[in-house]
Amino acid sequence: MAIPFEDEDSVGLVEPRIEHFAEPFPLACGEVLPAFDLIVETYGTLNSNRSNAVLVCHALSGNHHAAGKHSPEDAKPGWWDTLIGPGKPVDTNRFFVVSLNNLGGCDGSTGPNTINPATGEAWGPDFPDVTVKDWVNSQLALADRLEIDRWAVVIGGSLGGMQALYWAVHHPDRVANCVVLAAAPRLTAQNIAFNEIARHAITSDPDWLEGHYSKQQTVPARGLALARMVGHLTYMSAEGMTDKFGRERRATEQNGEPEIFEVESYLRYQGAQFSTRFDANTYLLMTRALDYFDIADYTDGDLSTALSPISARLLVVSFSSDWRFSPARSREMVDALITTNKDVSYAEIETDGGHDAFLLNDPDYCHLMRAWLEQVTL
Amino acid sequence: MAIPFEDEDSVGLVEPRIEHFAEPFPLACGEVLPAFDLIVETYGTLNSNRSNAVLVCHALSGNHHAAGKHSPEDAKPGWWDTLIGPGKPVDTNRFFVVSLNNLGGCDGSTGPNTINPATGEAWGPDFPDVTVKDWVNSQLALADRLEIDRWAVVIGGSLGGMQALYWAVHHPDRVANCVVLAAAPRLTAQNIAFNEIARHAITSDPDWLEGHYSKQQTVPARGLALARMVGHLTYMSAEGMTDKFGRERRATEQNGEPEIFEVESYLRYQGAQFSTRFDANTYLLMTRALDYFDIADYTDGDLSTALSPISARLLVVSFSSDWRFSPARSREMVDALITTNKDVSYAEIETDGGHDAFLLNDPDYCHLMRAWLEQVTL
Repeated sequence: MAIPFEDEDSVGLVEPRIEHFAEPFPLACGEVLPAFDLIVETYGTLNSNRSNAVLVCHALSGNHHAAGKHSPEDAKPGWWDTLIGPGKPVDTNRFFVVSLNNLGGCDGSTGPNTINPATGEAWGPDFPDVTVKDWVNSQLALADRLEIDRWAVVIGGSLGGMQALYWAVHHPDRVANCVVLAAAPRLTAQNIAFNEIARHAITSDPDWLEGHYSKQQTVPARGLALARMVGHLTYMSAEGMTDKFGRERRATEQNGEPEIFEVESYLRYQGAQFSTRFDANTYLLMTRALDYFDIADYTDGDLSTALSPISARLLVVSFSSDWRFSPARSREMVDALITTNKDVSYAEIETDGGHDAFLLNDPDYCHLMRAWLEQVTL
Repeated sequence: MAIPFEDEDSVGLVEPRIEHFAEPFPLACGEVLPAFDLIVETYGTLNSNRSNAVLVCHALSGNHHAAGKHSPEDAKPGWWDTLIGPGKPVDTNRFFVVSLNNLGGCDGSTGPNTINPATGEAWGPDFPDVTVKDWVNSQLALADRLEIDRWAVVIGGSLGGMQALYWAVHHPDRVANCVVLAAAPRLTAQNIAFNEIARHAITSDPDWLEGHYSKQQTVPARGLALARMVGHLTYMSAEGMTDKFGRERRATEQNGEPEIFEVESYLRYQGAQFSTRFDANTYLLMTRALDYFDIADYTDGDLSTALSPISARLLVVSFSSDWRFSPARSREMVDALITTNKDVSYAEIETDGGHDAFLLNDPDYCHLMRAWLEQVTL
C-alpha cells in the first residue's frame, strides 16, 4: 500500500480505503447504526501469523491519516509521522500499523456529514452520541475484519489514550501491549469547562442553525474558529508560549486595527484554518465523548478495580508542562495499576511542549518509545 | 455618606457621586479627552490632616461599588465588602476609602457608553485606548480634587494591582503604602491569548457591528457571554472547580438537550449574567490595557531599575492556586524589589480559590491584610 517517495524514514505515499460494515451496530446510547463505514490507512506489512499489528487511536481532531503523504505535493505528512515509519519508534519495518477515523468523525468514516440511510440526507445533528466504548467496539469489528485476534500494541494520546486504556480493560485477551500517552482516567471539572466553552462558541454562532448548517450551505465558522482557539491554547504550555511568542507584536494588514501580539495572530490563524477543515457536529460529539468518558464508571469510581482486568504490558507517558492532562493524572492511573500488580512502565517527559508534546519530535520521548516498543514480542 | 443598615461590620448604605473634570485630559495614545467624569464612592471619614486616605483600584470587570449597598434590597454588597468596612482589614473606622470606576468603564465614568461631546452621540468603539498610566493620571486628578497629597495606601488586585504598582513607581511622593495582590509585572503570551480569545468572541458576534451595537439597540450578548466564560474559568483553580463541581450532572430544562455537567450550567449562567451588565467596548478596552501593561517598559524590561523609584512600604500577595498570575509572577516583582532594598513584605496564601482568591474571605489572607494594614502609620 505504501510507496516510498522521498524520505528514507517515511512510509511514503499512502492511500486510505473504506471498510464497510453492513451489520446493525448498537451504540451505548441505545440507538443502532444500520451500518457504518470506517476509513482506514495501514503502514507496513502484516506478518504471516498476524501478530505484529498496531492500532493507532486518534485524539479529538485527528483522523486516519497518521503517517506518509497522500500526494508528493502535500505540504505536511500525517499527524504522527514523527513516530510512525521505517526505523521510527513505531517501526513499520517491524509492525503493521492500522489507523482509522473514528465513528462520528468528519474525514471519511460514518458521521454527521455522511448520509443517514433512513432519510437520504446527511445525519447532521441527528447523528447519535458516540462514546469511547462505541469507538472501541467499531475498532473491534475492524480487527475481526482484518483477522487480527490480538493487537501487538494499541496506542494513543489524549482521547486516543483513553481508547487504548479502554481496549486493555475491556478486551484484555486482544491487547498484548498498551501505550497511554498524555491521558487521564476521566476529565476534571476544568477540562469539561474548556470543552463546554468550545461547544458554546459553536452553538451560539448564528450559522449553527441547531446543527443543520449544511442544509443551508453554511458553516458556523466563527464558532469553530473560537472553539479551536480555546482548545489549541490548552494544548500549549505557558512556558512554550512565552518561548515561541513572548510579547512580540506585529502590524496588522487591516487599516485602523491596532498592532497585535504575535500570539494573537497565531491563534486567529489556527482558528480560521480549523474552521475550513473540521465539522462542527463532529466537534460537539467528540468533546462530549471526552466529557462522559470515565474508565472507572463501571466500578463506581474505584480505579484499581476498574483497571484490574488488564493483562497487557503497559506504558504510561506524561509530559511535564501538560496542564490539560497533567502528569498527576497519569500517576493516578499508574498508582492504580501498581496496586493491582500490572506490568506498567511510567515516564514523565521533561518538555515545554504542553499537551501537544505527544505529537512532537522530542528526543527523550522518541527514545523512550523506541526502547519500549523494541521490547514488544511478536 | 454611609448609613449603617444591617451588619455591624458593613459600611452600610452608600451613594456614588460624579466628579467632573473640565480640563482637557491627554491620554498615552496621543488623543485628548476634552473633559471627563469619574464615578466615585467613599467609605469612612477623611481625617483632619488628610493622611488616612486609601485608594482602591479595580480589576477588569470591577467598578466603584466596592463596599456596602446602594439599597437595603440589594442582593449583594460591593465587590470587596469582605475586606472593606468597620473593623475589617481595610478598616473604615480608621481609613477614608476612595473607590472609583476607571476611565473607559461602563458603570458611570466617562467611557464608550457615555456621550462624546464632539458628536453628541455615545463614544462607542471610538472611545480612545486607555492604559494603566491614564487611569493613574485620572486618579491623580481625583486625589488633587479631594486634596489628598499622599495616599496612606494604594491597593488593588490583578489589573488593580498593576495600577497600585504604577502609582508607587511613578508617583512615589504620593503613596505611603502600596498593596499589590494577585498581579504581575506584565502579561505572558498565555495571558494575552486568553484575552484575545475573549475579544475574538465579542468581535466575531454578528451583533458586534464593529462596536456600533448601541446605535442599533443591540448588544453582542453571545460574544460577551463567551468572553466571560473564558475569563471566569481562568479565575478559578482546577482544584477549586473539582471541589465545587466535580463531575456532577444536572438535567436541563430544555427538551431534547442532553444532561449537562454542573460546571457547564454554572459557566453558562455566569456568561449570561455578565452579558446583561457589562459593555463590550469596555471589555475590549480593559483587556487591551492589561495586555499592553508592562511596568518595566520604560527601562527596556529591566524590572529592578523600573521599580527603583518606589519609596512606599509594600505588600505583595500571591495565591497558591492562581494560574492566571501565578505566585512566580509575584516573586519576580518581590525579587526585583529586594534587589533595590525596598521595604517589601511578601506572602503566598495557600488556597484553592485561584486568581479570584484576592476577592474572597480567606482567613489567612484577611488576617495578613489586617496585620499589615494595622502597621500603616497615619
